Amino acid sequence: MKVLVTGGAGFIGSNLVDRLLDHGATVTVYDNFSTGQPAFLDKARTRAACHLVEADLLDRPSLTSAMRGQELVVHLAANADVRHGLELPHRDLEQNTIATHHLLEAMRACGTRRIVFSSTGSVYGEPAVFPTPEDCPLPIQTSLYGASKIAAEGLISAYSTGFGIQAIILRFVSILGERYTHGHVFDFYRKLRANPDDVEILGDGNQRKSYLYVGDCLDALLRAVECATAPVSIFNLGSDEYCTVNDSLGWICAALGVNPRRHFTGGERGWVGDSPFIFLDCTRIRALGWRPTLTIREAVLRTLEYLQASPWVMEQRA
Amino acid sequence: MKVLVTGGAGFIGSNLVDRLLDHGATVTVYDNFSTGQPAFLDKARTRAACHLVEADLLDRPSLTSAMRGQELVVHLAANADVRHGLELPHRDLEQNTIATHHLLEAMRACGTRRIVFSSTGSVYGEPAVFPTPEDCPLPIQTSLYGASKIAAEGLISAYSTGFGIQAIILRFVSILGERYTHGHVFDFYRKLRANPDDVEILGDGNQRKSYLYVGDCLDALLRAVECATAPVSIFNLGSDEYCTVNDSLGWICAALGVNPRRHFTGGERGWVGDSPFIFLDCTRIRALGWRPTLTIREAVLRTLEYLQASPWVMEQRA
Repeated sequence: MKVLVTGGAGFIGSNLVDRLLDHGATVTVYDNFSTGQPAFLDKARTRAACHLVEADLLDRPSLTSAMRGQELVVHLAANADVRHGLELPHRDLEQNTIATHHLLEAMRACGTRRIVFSSTGSVYGEPAVFPTPEDCPLPIQTSLYGASKIAAEGLISAYSTGFGIQAIILRFVSILGERYTHGHVFDFYRKLRANPDDVEILGDGNQRKSYLYVGDCLDALLRAVECATAPVSIFNLGSDEYCTVNDSLGWICAALGVNPRRHFTGGERGWVGDSPFIFLDCTRIRALGWRPTLTIREAVLRTLEYLQASPWVMEQRA
Repeated sequence: MKVLVTGGAGFIGSNLVDRLLDHGATVTVYDNFSTGQPAFLDKARTRAACHLVEADLLDRPSLTSAMRGQELVVHLAANADVRHGLELPHRDLEQNTIATHHLLEAMRACGTRRIVFSSTGSVYGEPAVFPTPEDCPLPIQTSLYGASKIAAEGLISAYSTGFGIQAIILRFVSILGERYTHGHVFDFYRKLRANPDDVEILGDGNQRKSYLYVGDCLDALLRAVECATAPVSIFNLGSDEYCTVNDSLGWICAALGVNPRRHFTGGERGWVGDSPFIFLDCTRIRALGWRPTLTIREAVLRTLEYLQASPWVMEQRA
């Protein structure tokens, strides 16, 4: 199978590329390296079945050229900086919504008929139902990131109806694991490396969040590709547990052998638009026989080990 | 109150402008006249409190300049051509989603804090619940028009959370009445004027649709502006009845005194992405004391009378 992976040099993308190559696929990595890392492709680049296109999704000629002959697109490229959306309000719209439109137009031009899209649990805003199912009450968006992703979902679904594209939409919780380059484990580890005696926590630390290990995420993604036959299939992707930010910080501190004073910025949200509780109902994807292999605690610790063993990652964004 | 009405030269917009001027507001009409009609502003333009800006929403300098000092924005400008979305797939995205982003940025730049947005029952795709309430299960989009409007809703809601803008989102059924310039009454009347003996019907004619008279629509809009205090208020706007396309054609034929042979293009949808059943639960807006004054039949007939008395409207788009 010929697969185009957008954001293929990123955290989840590069892990997927390695998996697809192991499965015998021919893979085109499409990445603008704005956050993707060339080093994440060190192994993939040794394979003849791996092709790299360094270009932006808004560059339509490059995109259309890369699309020719592809059978499946896995669209992972995105602005994933949820927290700072309000500082550059056009960024989520451009990189997540408009970029998805360009991708769909390239698929249409080239006759590529299948897409997997990485959406997010953030599309649920601040839901009233927990765990939150895929068909929960139509939510009110609370972040530009969530808004840009539900907009991209809408475009993909409308293209499915209009142009016969088959779509798998995966609404992820936060993903952890090898090649993780931003998020709360990164932030806490960076802060504690700089000062093991004091640590700042955004909000009151009681935000409840769900996380999933990247290997489990990819198992689910590949299972969905194998099983889903509907024109549009939507799956939540998470674990059947959650933890608080304070819990996770505790695991990180114990692993590092530090005991910092905790300073809270206060409030039940870490930032404007942060959802204080994310916990997804994953019954649908579990019905395909998938289940996560790591607990949240194990995933946090494995991520920390990866960061400890990869000082260059910490320096990239220090 | 100083009000900016985007699409203020259009069908609903120009009716609103007249009402706002009657209520003593200072009104800025912002319209690019792509479908708006100068003649719809003949009355408004005689009033000192009416200002006209002929410009596009994608023209940020003109938009920002027009926004200065405005207290309320009523955002009605849109590509409302639901049926031909697939022929120009970027049009809904640009004119409905990206244009709304420009508008929100202009509001932010100028400190304008209130917006009323004309969304659509099309955001529900093909719902499973009838009448469909505002908090129905998160729908799958089936048209680029619906996708572009739910995307705009998401942007507006995220701006509300992020920047303190108060938003009223109104999900309209199809609106009928004076200054109506496109839709099924227009199409049937045009066809029957050309040939009273034969008429083509898109689909099987059994599509069930709900409609609302423009005067009732504006009563509801103004009631919502008066009453809504939440950061984001969402209201369906429709009537508590529906009719089939065949019903409506029957009323039109009876009024015209014609009895054409009916030719159906077939299928339960009029076009790809058409929703075969639109019927909204309007309990929320009714709880504010509003109710429609005209039945669907009365609204269809009043629209027909308007078109019969306004041959220039028929010629605009013949």
